[in-house]
Amino acid sequence: MIIDTIENQIFVVRDDLYPSLGSGNKGRKMDQIGAQLLKNGHDAIVTTGGIQSNHCRATAIFAAKHKISCTLVVHGNEARFRKEGGNAKLMRDAKARMVFPATDDISRAMDAAMEAYTADGYNPYYLRGGGHTLEGGLAYVNAIDELLAHSNILPDYIFLASGTGSTQAGIMAGLAKNKVNCDVIGISVARERKRAENIVYSSYLELCGHLEIDPGLQKKATVLDDYLCGGYEKFGPSIKEVSNTSIPKYGFPLDTTYTGKAFYGMLDYVGTNRLKGNLFFWHTGGFLNYLANV
Amino acid sequence: MIIDTIENQIFVVRDDLYPSLGSGNKGRKMDQIGAQLLKNGHDAIVTTGGIQSNHCRATAIFAAKHKISCTLVVHGNEARFRKEGGNAKLMRDAKARMVFPATDDISRAMDAAMEAYTADGYNPYYLRGGGHTLEGGLAYVNAIDELLAHSNILPDYIFLASGTGSTQAGIMAGLAKNKVNCDVIGISVARERKRAENIVYSSYLELCGHLEIDPGLQKKATVLDDYLCGGYEKFGPSIKEVSNTSIPKYGFPLDTTYTGKAFYGMLDYVGTNRLKGNLFFWHTGGFLNYLANV
Repeated sequence: MIIDTIENQIFVVRDDLYPSLGSGNKGRKMDQIGAQLLKNGHDAIVTTGGIQSNHCRATAIFAAKHKISCTLVVHGNEARFRKEGGNAKLMRDAKARMVFPATDDISRAMDAAMEAYTADGYNPYYLRGGGHTLEGGLAYVNAIDELLAHSNILPDYIFLASGTGSTQAGIMAGLAKNKVNCDVIGISVARERKRAENIVYSSYLELCGHLEIDPGLQKKATVLDDYLCGGYEKFGPSIKEVSNTSIPKYGFPLDTTYTGKAFYGMLDYVGTNRLKGNLFFWHTGGFLNYLANV
Repeated sequence: MIIDTIENQIFVVRDDLYPSLGSGNKGRKMDQIGAQLLKNGHDAIVTTGGIQSNHCRATAIFAAKHKISCTLVVHGNEARFRKEGGNAKLMRDAKARMVFPATDDISRAMDAAMEAYTADGYNPYYLRGGGHTLEGGLAYVNAIDELLAHSNILPDYIFLASGTGSTQAGIMAGLAKNKVNCDVIGISVARERKRAENIVYSSYLELCGHLEIDPGLQKKATVLDDYLCGGYEKFGPSIKEVSNTSIPKYGFPLDTTYTGKAFYGMLDYVGTNRLKGNLFFWHTGGFLNYLANV
């Protein structure tokens, strides 16, 4: 685990350097999810995501590496998918099976892929989009153990981009497990606040139940939707500016979809609320998304 | 350090996952070179490379992160450089100063950049192209220490892509330092055999002198030029095939310029010479070069 310090005051957990092809939180989650599914004897995976999905890329790479079959149910235009680089190229190159159903048909296509595997004698694993599973959350419980082993500075605040929610839930459960009193503030990249907070908190409670942890240390989930700029993959000039200047300022990239939004939101929120204490930014990746914006 | 095992017989050192933005051997070398130049009080770097140079990218990122100035003397077409993604994008985004001299004017442009820094009151560091320096080699002496700490299997053969030569020289010196009897076989990505071997062996002797190691354990440098396909960035259908199938076969990418050439050369050489023993492939990176081939 690499932890940078910037501006002498913010600690940055560099999961954009997590050692898995393409890196990021989806790589970290997939290692944990994958270990469990291999242990359970699965030999095929069915999952879903968009054309530049980091989760689908991590899944396809994991499946290739471990020589198990993989079907990706992709939302988005097939012609666009065939042309794009980054995550799309890696999914293609990993030789995952791909299907492109209509948007309202994703769930049915997932079921159909599962049935097809079963009919062919496989033991397939149904992996929810984003790697939003118990094991995905556990990957971040373990990441907090790793953080505390690496750093003798205890975080007072952890900020991160919050999407499907299990990264944030895992971080919260890891802190509860280690009895560290710390506010975890997700910056939503897609969902409105109430829905996002409910999903994160429910995943948190599930993790606490599984690990037999007292959930009382984290009273609620906080996911800010003030920096959405209208939704997923949307951004305004301030977030674009953060992304354009992040390498010369900090030495790491911030993309406009995930980490740029979260970093901008953190700076604004910290300033507005005059937060003091040990601030951590959990850099969840997005390098391939960053590179895609030539 | 991540070490994969493929086909139950080849160990792969995954420096394509080395934790530095863009990864690879140039990231590993730059960390060592950079630590030394900061220690010596330099506040600017001048170096050189092509449009998709991994070395220039690693240098620009290092300089940005440590807030020192950086001038890249780029060989290649400026208009092409402004349009390309991958390493070119990262060099631009890192806000390195860039100059584009005529091909026969590189050396003069490096000197001019050094003089300009000095005139402006900087203490600039002249970094040879490819990071081909003593510290660049020492990074790989240390990498061998790391390998031996991680793996209790001693290598009998190490194969790697060989370019400017200090990665190979460092590996050889690391083996000599640790008294490990192992053949190191470079697959040339650009140079003809004799010239490449002379440069590697001379760097090796320099490292041994610096570290006060008996150089006798490595009698000569081996750099094969049988897989050049005509030169730098050139490749034939066999290497293209290795690159196209590497992710589904092994779970990692092999680009056509560096690691694909080396991997193909290794398989051919091992088969032809019926090598037995512990085979290691040192995966030196090239992920951004791989991604560039959409």
